[in-house]
Amino acid sequence: MSYMDHSATSPVNPEVLEAMLPYFTESFGNASTLYALGREARTAMENGRKQVASLIGAKPEEVYFTSGGTESDNIAIKGTASRLKNKGNHIITSDIEHPAVEETCKYLEKNGYTVTYLPVGEEGIVKVSDVEEAITDKTILITVMHANNEIGTIQPIKEIGALAREKGIYFHTDAVQSVGKIPVNVEDMNVDMLSISAHKLYGPKGIGALYIKKGVRVDPLLHGGGHERGMRPGTENVPGIVGLGKACQIAEENLEKNMEYVSSLRDRLIKGVLETIEQSYLNGHPTKRLPNNANFRFSSIEGESLVLQLDAKGINASTGSACSSKKLEPSHVLMAIGLKEVDAHGSLRISLGTENTTEDIDYTITAIGEVVERLRSMSPLWCPAKEN
Amino acid sequence: MSYMDHSATSPVNPEVLEAMLPYFTESFGNASTLYALGREARTAMENGRKQVASLIGAKPEEVYFTSGGTESDNIAIKGTASRLKNKGNHIITSDIEHPAVEETCKYLEKNGYTVTYLPVGEEGIVKVSDVEEAITDKTILITVMHANNEIGTIQPIKEIGALAREKGIYFHTDAVQSVGKIPVNVEDMNVDMLSISAHKLYGPKGIGALYIKKGVRVDPLLHGGGHERGMRPGTENVPGIVGLGKACQIAEENLEKNMEYVSSLRDRLIKGVLETIEQSYLNGHPTKRLPNNANFRFSSIEGESLVLQLDAKGINASTGSACSSKKLEPSHVLMAIGLKEVDAHGSLRISLGTENTTEDIDYTITAIGEVVERLRSMSPLWCPAKEN
Repeated sequence: MSYMDHSATSPVNPEVLEAMLPYFTESFGNASTLYALGREARTAMENGRKQVASLIGAKPEEVYFTSGGTESDNIAIKGTASRLKNKGNHIITSDIEHPAVEETCKYLEKNGYTVTYLPVGEEGIVKVSDVEEAITDKTILITVMHANNEIGTIQPIKEIGALAREKGIYFHTDAVQSVGKIPVNVEDMNVDMLSISAHKLYGPKGIGALYIKKGVRVDPLLHGGGHERGMRPGTENVPGIVGLGKACQIAEENLEKNMEYVSSLRDRLIKGVLETIEQSYLNGHPTKRLPNNANFRFSSIEGESLVLQLDAKGINASTGSACSSKKLEPSHVLMAIGLKEVDAHGSLRISLGTENTTEDIDYTITAIGEVVERLRSMSPLWCPAKEN
Repeated sequence: MSYMDHSATSPVNPEVLEAMLPYFTESFGNASTLYALGREARTAMENGRKQVASLIGAKPEEVYFTSGGTESDNIAIKGTASRLKNKGNHIITSDIEHPAVEETCKYLEKNGYTVTYLPVGEEGIVKVSDVEEAITDKTILITVMHANNEIGTIQPIKEIGALAREKGIYFHTDAVQSVGKIPVNVEDMNVDMLSISAHKLYGPKGIGALYIKKGVRVDPLLHGGGHERGMRPGTENVPGIVGLGKACQIAEENLEKNMEYVSSLRDRLIKGVLETIEQSYLNGHPTKRLPNNANFRFSSIEGESLVLQLDAKGINASTGSACSSKKLEPSHVLMAIGLKEVDAHGSLRISLGTENTTEDIDYTITAIGEVVERLRSMSPLWCPAKEN
């Protein structure tokens, strides 16, 4: 099997699982209890916090554990909206955010807030000047993702952050796709809040983190037992936290090496597909993209059929993102970069991982070519000679 | 080690862990993806949903997965408050709820809602007539826990539920401590919503569920990718769900046997402690309590010292609940049943599990006796002859 859908989720690294295991059955204590078993759990949890903090250049006390990226995004955005409601009601975001940000913004629009959705142009990148123009004296939050989950484009976070800081506006970035894949440093990037999900970087599902810069105050979303210094109540998911921490440690130690390796695979894939498959195109920016992301479109192809036929050949990939794969609407990200609906439906996201090999890539190039050819041979829309 | 703090958390049953393991590293797919690996994850998830539903007498489609009990409680309460805000703004709850309910109610009080906190008397049980008297034409929700997390008292849920249904008011119960310990049937109990946490019944931390009766509509708390039919977005925690499901299946198969066994241990413990330790008392109701819960108070004893000295003897127990063990305030539950502050501080919660043995109990009775005697010998407050 060639698993090539790492933006949807990744297998748990065996070392990560091994680190987690004792905390299910032996050191299973509740981290909020007073006795040794509880303190042991707490120590493991605080070690995980340090590992997460280290990967993103934060202080441990700036890392709050959550159930994942969606919850982190919701806390950052709703928590700011609630906390600063007397200061203003305007939020700036982009047209290509993950639904966890997009839908949260839409929810706030129904509840007295106004939201500016910035365009991203055909390369899928927000312009800093557009952010600046959108700022009003009611703006309380800017939330722009670090790297896009569908087309992998990397946004000018450092520059947007500098602008936000200059204007005294909170700045959040959803870094679920970038943490562990490319360098992420909260200080360099001028962010106030940053969302992390473990299962995108070889950690377990159901655990994530929200970085909140010291001094930044947002309201919690859940109420309860006061865990995570009141920011996120609920018995701490110690095995999950240990897994997230270990995944961050491994990612940090191997970041440069993995970037180099995975981007070489990606470049081989892009070159191979574009050169061998007629009327194939790369969606998104040619270079400002994640090392592991390639997003193609093929004229006269229906993406879902492509995904299912590749599955039959042992290749796992997505049309759009996993979160929207069950919806019938075309990807809002691909529509935002100007694709026609038919082309958005005919796109394929391949997101690579460190366990993929050169042989996988070569096999995949051939397999995509075969599937595309077969699907086109059955399509009444296919015109070999005509440019799209 | 004699672990006797199962109300705080429980070890993951080895069978549960075994069921979970493949979903970390092999069948690790994102349950929302289209290809076989994703469908495999989805099948496992839906199997987990059936297992949870079966334990509580629900339909699978009435079970929504969350990150745990705290989140389930928050969704039920805030989701109702938001959904029914045009219908009314009054909520009825009890004085002895878990902080996940109590703090959520307090939060709503700051946001335009009014909350009635019902007294529970010295036995720690809500009176149905008090619930009835508290109902107004603005009442939109009644939320009363099934079994208390500190003193183990079991509330008249079926009767409160019948009343709520008659009046057309949503009824939620936090059943985190009761599911898997005593029979829980959502139909019999007349509940509209019911919260579950996996790690209290030998499942993993970081996963729970909320039962929402078909036809009952509440607003989601998180916004995002539309998972769990829009009620709870975020990539599904498949290993966690598999673990929760398996834990429910095991609990269902062994419920009667475990109740009988654990309650025999509890009764031996209560008898032993009350008979051998001077000025020792049982908090809560003598019989309407969880099979695994004993909550004692000892005159002139400081609970934290008791917990730490028992830890030194290999016994894990709590003063109050795990969630409040780091706070200096006395337990709000013990205060609600009329204890003096000094007695609330001197209380000890022992919550048993199926892995405890008769030998554990006898050892614990002796150990508590020794520790209490030593602490009293150092206490200026201790008066052997005087009744408390």
